[in-house]
Amino acid sequence: MDYKYQPISVLIRSVPMFASLDADLLTEIEGMTEFIEVPPNTEMCGQGTIPSYLSILLKGQIVMSGNAPDGSETVMEIIHPPGHFVLAAVLTQLPYLMTARSVMFSQLLQLPAAGLRALLARAPLLALNMLQTQAQDFRAMVQHVRDLKLRSTAQRLGCYLLALVKEPDAQIVAFRLPFDKGLLAGRLGCRREILSRAFAALRVQGVETRGMRVLLHDIEKLRAFAAADEIMHPVGMATITPQPNGHL
Amino acid sequence: MDYKYQPISVLIRSVPMFASLDADLLTEIEGMTEFIEVPPNTEMCGQGTIPSYLSILLKGQIVMSGNAPDGSETVMEIIHPPGHFVLAAVLTQLPYLMTARSVMFSQLLQLPAAGLRALLARAPLLALNMLQTQAQDFRAMVQHVRDLKLRSTAQRLGCYLLALVKEPDAQIVAFRLPFDKGLLAGRLGCRREILSRAFAALRVQGVETRGMRVLLHDIEKLRAFAAADEIMHPVGMATITPQPNGHL
Repeated sequence: MDYKYQPISVLIRSVPMFASLDADLLTEIEGMTEFIEVPPNTEMCGQGTIPSYLSILLKGQIVMSGNAPDGSETVMEIIHPPGHFVLAAVLTQLPYLMTARSVMFSQLLQLPAAGLRALLARAPLLALNMLQTQAQDFRAMVQHVRDLKLRSTAQRLGCYLLALVKEPDAQIVAFRLPFDKGLLAGRLGCRREILSRAFAALRVQGVETRGMRVLLHDIEKLRAFAAADEIMHPVGMATITPQPNGHL
Repeated sequence: MDYKYQPISVLIRSVPMFASLDADLLTEIEGMTEFIEVPPNTEMCGQGTIPSYLSILLKGQIVMSGNAPDGSETVMEIIHPPGHFVLAAVLTQLPYLMTARSVMFSQLLQLPAAGLRALLARAPLLALNMLQTQAQDFRAMVQHVRDLKLRSTAQRLGCYLLALVKEPDAQIVAFRLPFDKGLLAGRLGCRREILSRAFAALRVQGVETRGMRVLLHDIEKLRAFAAADEIMHPVGMATITPQPNGHL
């Protein structure tokens, strides 16, 4: 899918946080949104700088990394479409806590931070959508902390592989890792050689790997071993309904 | 400070997320808010249950812990006044990812989740305040992940002690640990004996401990060792200003 030749008006309508906004507002958002393409390994925003844009990923992959002042670096998150970065920094006008870099050729929408904040003050439904989006971001980070503190590397790897399964009821699945193992090690918070040991440890749980190809022979067994959390589907802000005046 | 004899109308006005709301809205919030007191070791909400309340801590201490399905448990966060829990679960209507338990006698405000969500749809400024609050919650969790992945236990302990310093420009400070060392070990993600070793490792960085008393003899040295992040003050939603119609 190439998004280059699609009108921005169509692209913004596909973004969850812009769902069910009225046409005038969408036109306004469209007017401030830019479509950009970046080659692999492009720094999109740097830790410590004040955000200029909220970015929404349409195609490609972005790695969010964090640096300690001593220069050491870690992978905080790997963002896939239709993910976004970095809403919290845009809303608080505080320096980014992470650096965003493209892993591969990527296509994105960029919304100016100041324009977005001004819009929020006039568009209650947008604010509600963003509350919902942010709540999910927060919960993902909570899961990350829980993972790091409660699970072994092999269990974390198991959970990560399970999250890549698109057919939750399947017994056996095969897929390609969507990024290289160095990045995966960073996301799991371990060194490359520890990741290899984790893959080896998962063999008895029915996990087979050949290069980038992964085969899960027994999803239930892997789920039990990894102590994976239940999958949870957001109920969402469905009970918050607009008021008759057309706004909220 | 005992909050029992203060009117709820006064208490809710001191909560940052209710700042600058108009009088009618505050009266409405007041009408749905309950003041409660809990003895030590009371479970306030259980991981996996759907939230009924947003809780705001006025006095005391709440420990948020996470459990893996295999029963292992970790301290996710220790909440001090005027902290809150668990906004993201209330907004998404998804099960709590954490269990909240009082560490000591605590006083709280409780706002029914459904009432709060209904209010958000009518009160844009409240939604904006909550966006701001949530952004800060998210950033705290990002810091937690960075800490776990980038810093040694001794560095994490150093950062945690530095965060307890109320006079950032002081060279030497003394204070009591606000909770026991078992809880501190959990928050740092290590076992009790590793915490003791971390305290020992910090001795050459000028950290002296006697029981619960801590003396930091050289804050600059400790800051350099712990690779502590710069302290960041939120600029906030100050640029999002209400519209003349009185709402937004």
